[in-house]
Amino acid sequence: MAFDKLSKAADSDKLETMRHSASHVLAEAVQSIFPDARFGIGPATRDGFYYDFELPRSLTTEDLPIIEARMKEIVAANLPFAREDVSKEEARSLFAAQPYKLELIEEIADEKVGLYRQGKFLDLCRGPHVSATGEIKAFKLVSIAGAYWRGDEHRPMLQRVYGVAFDTKEALEEHLEKIEEAAKRDHRKLGKELDLFSIHEEAGPGLVHWHPRGSVIRRVIEDFWKDEHIKRGYDLIYTPHIAKRDLWQTSGHWDFYREYMYSPMDVEGQEYVIKPMNCLGHILIYKTSQRSYRELPLRYAELGTVYRYERSGVLHGLSRVRGFTQDDAHIFCRFDQLEEEVVGVLELTRFMMDTFGFTNHKVLLSTRPEKYAGALEVWEEATEILRKALESSGIAYEVDPGEGVFYGPKIDTKIEDALGRDWQGPTVQIDFNLPQRFDVNYIGEDGKEHMVAMVHRTVLGSMERFLASLLEHYGGAFPVWLAPVQAMVIPVADRHLDFARKLEAELKADGVRAEVDGRSERVNLKIRQAQLNKIPYMLVVGDREVAESTVSVRLRTGEQLAAQSLDSFKQGVKQAMISRTKELKF
Amino acid sequence: MAFDKLSKAADSDKLETMRHSASHVLAEAVQSIFPDARFGIGPATRDGFYYDFELPRSLTTEDLPIIEARMKEIVAANLPFAREDVSKEEARSLFAAQPYKLELIEEIADEKVGLYRQGKFLDLCRGPHVSATGEIKAFKLVSIAGAYWRGDEHRPMLQRVYGVAFDTKEALEEHLEKIEEAAKRDHRKLGKELDLFSIHEEAGPGLVHWHPRGSVIRRVIEDFWKDEHIKRGYDLIYTPHIAKRDLWQTSGHWDFYREYMYSPMDVEGQEYVIKPMNCLGHILIYKTSQRSYRELPLRYAELGTVYRYERSGVLHGLSRVRGFTQDDAHIFCRFDQLEEEVVGVLELTRFMMDTFGFTNHKVLLSTRPEKYAGALEVWEEATEILRKALESSGIAYEVDPGEGVFYGPKIDTKIEDALGRDWQGPTVQIDFNLPQRFDVNYIGEDGKEHMVAMVHRTVLGSMERFLASLLEHYGGAFPVWLAPVQAMVIPVADRHLDFARKLEAELKADGVRAEVDGRSERVNLKIRQAQLNKIPYMLVVGDREVAESTVSVRLRTGEQLAAQSLDSFKQGVKQAMISRTKELKF
Repeated sequence: MAFDKLSKAADSDKLETMRHSASHVLAEAVQSIFPDARFGIGPATRDGFYYDFELPRSLTTEDLPIIEARMKEIVAANLPFAREDVSKEEARSLFAAQPYKLELIEEIADEKVGLYRQGKFLDLCRGPHVSATGEIKAFKLVSIAGAYWRGDEHRPMLQRVYGVAFDTKEALEEHLEKIEEAAKRDHRKLGKELDLFSIHEEAGPGLVHWHPRGSVIRRVIEDFWKDEHIKRGYDLIYTPHIAKRDLWQTSGHWDFYREYMYSPMDVEGQEYVIKPMNCLGHILIYKTSQRSYRELPLRYAELGTVYRYERSGVLHGLSRVRGFTQDDAHIFCRFDQLEEEVVGVLELTRFMMDTFGFTNHKVLLSTRPEKYAGALEVWEEATEILRKALESSGIAYEVDPGEGVFYGPKIDTKIEDALGRDWQGPTVQIDFNLPQRFDVNYIGEDGKEHMVAMVHRTVLGSMERFLASLLEHYGGAFPVWLAPVQAMVIPVADRHLDFARKLEAELKADGVRAEVDGRSERVNLKIRQAQLNKIPYMLVVGDREVAESTVSVRLRTGEQLAAQSLDSFKQGVKQAMISRTKELKF
Repeated sequence: MAFDKLSKAADSDKLETMRHSASHVLAEAVQSIFPDARFGIGPATRDGFYYDFELPRSLTTEDLPIIEARMKEIVAANLPFAREDVSKEEARSLFAAQPYKLELIEEIADEKVGLYRQGKFLDLCRGPHVSATGEIKAFKLVSIAGAYWRGDEHRPMLQRVYGVAFDTKEALEEHLEKIEEAAKRDHRKLGKELDLFSIHEEAGPGLVHWHPRGSVIRRVIEDFWKDEHIKRGYDLIYTPHIAKRDLWQTSGHWDFYREYMYSPMDVEGQEYVIKPMNCLGHILIYKTSQRSYRELPLRYAELGTVYRYERSGVLHGLSRVRGFTQDDAHIFCRFDQLEEEVVGVLELTRFMMDTFGFTNHKVLLSTRPEKYAGALEVWEEATEILRKALESSGIAYEVDPGEGVFYGPKIDTKIEDALGRDWQGPTVQIDFNLPQRFDVNYIGEDGKEHMVAMVHRTVLGSMERFLASLLEHYGGAFPVWLAPVQAMVIPVADRHLDFARKLEAELKADGVRAEVDGRSERVNLKIRQAQLNKIPYMLVVGDREVAESTVSVRLRTGEQLAAQSLDSFKQGVKQAMISRTKELKF
């Protein structure tokens, strides 16, 4: 580890300690307001800290400044953090009124139990902490959320108070601005404002309904995805959403993956389940004929909608759902083709991410998890092939130990969005398990049967999560090729409506997604509306445009293009669609 | 009714009587071979007749000529058909050994029971019959199938023997040729030969897996369908495949349609069902905002995959399945827009059917069924609107009484294929029920809430059934625009392979679906293979083609086009794709 990395790590440890101490200060402040509070846990987080409480009433956001003010008093008092080690017996009596702490005490393996005390607050804690509360620098309480004790929905729901904390006031300010920007770009908020999708309690949480404008984006993405896959020698296929449970028993999913699968449906005395993955249908198609080594690799791609159980508490807009359409593919190949196939997937991955404007990626090689299927040496071999593919592609990566799926190791790509946040991106997984379970083979050059090697991969992940990333990355201001409406034609007065409709028809006939705002409203209001909808181009049509048969083009950024003929505008838009540029001007 | 129609109807009655008599002769023949046979029923069918038997052993196709020979003896003997009416009591004793007949006797309302006797065979029968067996002209036994007594899977399975019968030997021959042609065109057979789809017992009967070549056809159809809908002002949307059962309770489907729905899945104590229809998701999207009369009509279109229960016994290839993708749409409009909307759907219907080459249609107006939802006068009104739309479109139609769906009347189009057989085609249904149940409304010009009118419609029906129709209509020899592989490049010898690959790449780059048959096989074998696969164009590439940089084009019909440049060939194929012609020559 180079020196600057070492010192950075030390800085980050220091920051973490300070954040952890801030959580104790938060707890002390809450205790001073609610003397009967019961305490859960209070760790540091990526940007700050939280503490879980059981309180006599629900907190509201109005409570946060009051608690924060108490915290500031405690910090100003610069109270020392003092560690003491006591016996379990003694700890039990000290925390006699704190059932959550008592539960934690029972799980400590040592006879001695570490405690930390500052001011009037005593906590069960291993530390470390700053030496005194005065060392806690810039902090702010930001939100309240419900959290089950130990994340278990069968245990009590506690109230979690989140805070952020930084070394300097500047760093805190910067972070708060980022949070504010992220809130503005929240895909749930933008999805509603731009009328892209909805989720309905009546139909079920986590089930996404794509509105017309969201569906336009999805179709553009899907068509692009299909064409690029065909270019790279993939075959598109379609497989059903349900299958007999027995098939999932054979595959091992029913044993290894059941917690994510829905309960079976009964059809003529047979149990059927809705698919959580697309693999099995692809295997059945592969197996419809005896394959020869000459036919391989076969690359089957499907935009396959799968359904997986997630607790309703963890569902989140489009990014954590119960039903989603994976841009899935399975490659069936010979072992000696595996590395080349993975390289091909990595190339496609990079091309796709670049095209969509995600230029920063982080690549992780995930190795064998605790719960796994298949032989150890096969795991080793597969992991080695992924490593080689990464190296021959010249891709820098980190190892993520134990994060593989049960059937094989994988390469995950995290994409970084405009706000510097990571999103789950493309994934490539090797599977030596399913080919064995389903006897998926080919006839080799030697005339004998050989086991096929199988690769699972998605590039965008799912249509739902990918739209969420795109929305937050671009803040809803999509590049022209993805924008659901590319040009809004705005007549100045009702007498310009016919000309506006004519422009719309000509644009549409040429494949430009145009609409007319024909309401009898003021032009400025219509422009503002189009800007709120992040529509790239506004064509304002008044007397002059009608007379000269030109268009006056305003960008969503507020800039103006030179007055031009409709043909010139059409060419510009079409060029922007073909080049998939982020640039609006031409 | 014109005179020629009357006489045609009389002819057809005569033919039906003769076919019914043939079924009695079949029964007599079977009785003579199996004296212990028990008899079910034996009616006339569209082309002939059948009779259901319970026999001491299973029949095989080898039995058919033997039974047929006995039938011919009975016909040659010219035995008279004699009617007698007896009391129920007497009938019970005559049929004491025939449990199925006894069951039928109990259901006869009259005290008198009609019997028919010819030769040694006595049957329970209302008639009419020909006067003697000699009047039974050209007939042939064609197949054996299992059939549950009274179509009830809980009753015994009988053996059904099918025959065909016609006035003349020529008519019979013609019909048998048609059957033979139909068997050759059976979409299940062609689907396998052309490698288009498969259905797997392991996954479940009636669940279609689309192979790469089938998926190419499907994608072409889907893209065409989407584009045409967008042109006509439809919005594409996507909705999930599962929803809470409660939603289907609200809609009425759980009461009116449950026999077709799968049993619920449990998710966190809530029941979810897989959707049998797409309507509810569309309604939820409509209802995400308060709609104004100015926004209407809204036309939501979705290629939505639905799942419906069908008994495994009635499943049939792609044409009767358990999961299928409907080319669905729902139109939400004002009542005064309804007729115009239906006219628009009928126009789109006609355009689509013509484009796919189904030029003969039969249109049916289906009226209120026994089991229905909603008010009577609303049914009347809706039926009247459909009638007006048909009339203003100048479409001839027949009324199909009682064949509407539970929520409203509909217009069904039956398409006739190349063999003169009917297929279930487009359907337009008015629904005044769901808007009421879900309170689907808009704000009218008067500022008040009004109930919306809703239209359900599909044009192709489902991707699955439509592919079946297309396959049988074209016998697998698709027009160029639909052909999964449009051009097979066939190198004469291995030394021509590089040039062949170059042609393939150039064709593909220009959007022509080309492949190379690179196997080291004889050219004639490769040509035969491509012809069996009904590939429109074969480009045979030898020394001359390499030297002159031309292509030699052979059609799947065996005809040859003039040697030409690759560019000229590409233009020809692309023109055929754009014009969607059935013609291969250019």
